Amino acid sequence: MDHSTAALLALLIIFVAAQIGAEISQRLTLPSVVGEIAAGCIIGPFALNLIQVGHELELFAELGAILLLFSVGLETRLDDLKKVGKVAAYVGTGGVILPFLVGGLWAHLAGFELSKALFIGAAFVATSAGITARVLHELGMLSRIESRIILGAAVIDDILAMLLLGFVTSFQAQGSVDVLGLFFVLLQAVGFVLLLALVGTRLMQRSSQLLEAPINPLSPLTLCLAGCLALAVAAAYIGLAAIIGAFLAGMIAAESTQRHSLEKQLQPLLAFLVPYFFVVTGSKVDLSQLASLNVVGTVILVTILAVLSKIVACSLASMSLGRRSSIIVGVGMVPRGEVGIIVASLGLQAGVLSNTIYSVIILMSLLTSVIAPPALKALFAGITPPPGGEQGVDGHLMKVDTSGYG
Amino acid sequence: MDHSTAALLALLIIFVAAQIGAEISQRLTLPSVVGEIAAGCIIGPFALNLIQVGHELELFAELGAILLLFSVGLETRLDDLKKVGKVAAYVGTGGVILPFLVGGLWAHLAGFELSKALFIGAAFVATSAGITARVLHELGMLSRIESRIILGAAVIDDILAMLLLGFVTSFQAQGSVDVLGLFFVLLQAVGFVLLLALVGTRLMQRSSQLLEAPINPLSPLTLCLAGCLALAVAAAYIGLAAIIGAFLAGMIAAESTQRHSLEKQLQPLLAFLVPYFFVVTGSKVDLSQLASLNVVGTVILVTILAVLSKIVACSLASMSLGRRSSIIVGVGMVPRGEVGIIVASLGLQAGVLSNTIYSVIILMSLLTSVIAPPALKALFAGITPPPGGEQGVDGHLMKVDTSGYG
Repeated sequence: MDHSTAALLALLIIFVAAQIGAEISQRLTLPSVVGEIAAGCIIGPFALNLIQVGHELELFAELGAILLLFSVGLETRLDDLKKVGKVAAYVGTGGVILPFLVGGLWAHLAGFELSKALFIGAAFVATSAGITARVLHELGMLSRIESRIILGAAVIDDILAMLLLGFVTSFQAQGSVDVLGLFFVLLQAVGFVLLLALVGTRLMQRSSQLLEAPINPLSPLTLCLAGCLALAVAAAYIGLAAIIGAFLAGMIAAESTQRHSLEKQLQPLLAFLVPYFFVVTGSKVDLSQLASLNVVGTVILVTILAVLSKIVACSLASMSLGRRSSIIVGVGMVPRGEVGIIVASLGLQAGVLSNTIYSVIILMSLLTSVIAPPALKALFAGITPPPGGEQGVDGHLMKVDTSGYG
Repeated sequence: MDHSTAALLALLIIFVAAQIGAEISQRLTLPSVVGEIAAGCIIGPFALNLIQVGHELELFAELGAILLLFSVGLETRLDDLKKVGKVAAYVGTGGVILPFLVGGLWAHLAGFELSKALFIGAAFVATSAGITARVLHELGMLSRIESRIILGAAVIDDILAMLLLGFVTSFQAQGSVDVLGLFFVLLQAVGFVLLLALVGTRLMQRSSQLLEAPINPLSPLTLCLAGCLALAVAAAYIGLAAIIGAFLAGMIAAESTQRHSLEKQLQPLLAFLVPYFFVVTGSKVDLSQLASLNVVGTVILVTILAVLSKIVACSLASMSLGRRSSIIVGVGMVPRGEVGIIVASLGLQAGVLSNTIYSVIILMSLLTSVIAPPALKALFAGITPPPGGEQGVDGHLMKVDTSGYG
């Protein structure tokens, strides 16, 4: 078989395995990402060895992650933050700081040097609101105050996670604790993210008609794909993760009047390319390491730390809502899902994380996503859904629900 | 810059160059594919040298070609053939045989050995109906009898071209004129194409509901992408071109009730991936060879042969329509466009075609696509469009018109 046929065959195997994994997951009422990663574990070099991940598959996987983060950015609107106000800001910020500190501290105590420990801490941080949004939608609870706060806080959480990721990657590349250098690294990351998140979105709000025909002959999708790739390359160029640029491109596109049609046009691209990211991610998880009781213990400990730190920080930050509501908010913020997984993949790729700690973080991310939905359902038991609760906030969450990702 | 950033940068450069090229083409009222290939010439290693085409870019280009041929197949309906009947069958068949013979004969006389000459002949064959369809649409002439015959004949033309490509690739791989071997090669190619084109489409007609929820939990797009990749790999596995499998997968999907939603969902994937095929194709054209008068002469001669053989065969086959109409049909079948270009790319990749003859064929394909539209407009001058002429046949040609490809 020649090289290009072998590459096509690998694309086929991964795509089919991802669909089978996602389907089994959904029948078990688990998020489809769990099945896709599991499919990757099974067909990867540590088990059936059906695929070899070379440069081509890495590029497909990276493009999948870039488009996924672009679509996350596309759902991240600065206006949504204003609506839910202060409580969401507290929840989002607290839910980043405590897990980062707990994760980083655990890693440092477990023997990782500072730059690696910070990287591991960053993988503890990002909430994946998509899984929670799907559960809330199924329960008809999307219009309740807890749901609005969770989804608003997830926006802040995403922005802070990107900022943090920018900081730890730059810091790790620099590899020193030179205070002045650190300051510049932080300044660069913060500057890039804030400039694009605040100024970029503002500019787009004022010149949204630029994306529209007949002023512009290209389609909005084409322009946004070019912008997404350009900011991804720019982010990588200044030493940040490429996905940070993609996320910010999505945030900027979210301010255009073409947002809804973009979301729709993006679906086929996500359906085709995102499975490559999750399957390739799963293919690097060595499940045989779970034969060591030590590793199993570490996975359990890390998962407990990740769950508790998120619940404690987010519940405390939303105390003003009352006990039950604040716990709902805390539990709703637990799922880590794709962003944590992307951070771990970056760490493995850059050589910061060993295969063992990579596998631990992936498993932790999966477990948090598996635990949260039943817990949320239990917490909502006995509460009648508010009228119109299935409509979603602005209707745009319907998309999260049907996409199968996030 | 690390490897993955460099790969992303190449993806960005190609995508942006393709958009610029397509835009300039459209302003010059040329097909956008001309601009995309020209963009490839300019940024490729023979000129600005902005991109290096490695395995990753080849895979993107191949995937673009596969999806493009899948979409061509999706517009190829066996029922359409019945509607336009015998004349279209004569036009399609004649328009394949004469150009193949003329092209092959020229190549053989020019000194190419038999297997290479047949390959070159195959690149003379396939009409790209998309360019003609767009011109007919703009003129409001889509419902006239000439238009229906051109578009019906293009379907037969595509099927025969795939059959022929299957034959010449297998023959070339075999590399001998052993009559028994040749017979089996032909049988295999014909068998694969006919089995899928006739039996596959029939099965899909009877079980179209398989693609629909709730019997099937996966989306039609997902199933079709998997089927497209699977048949592409299968075709490559038995020694045919991967695009033949993709085309047949498209023909089968065309018989499902989900055809129109598939066409729509395919658009973003085509918009993203197809430019990689045309730009990579263009990047391999060495325009500096046009400095040789010899090569310029060859391009002109080959283009004249390609244009005349198509016009003569197709006009003769549609004589029953009257002189003016038969010439319109002949001219409408002239543009070669993407299928000829794909055949040439396969030849270059397989080492059958030298860089010179590859460049000649690409330029011929481009020139036929540039010549036909103004000639068609001139031929229709003075004919008033029939009422409702802009509706298109079945409405599905509207898609060809807006896609920018074909």
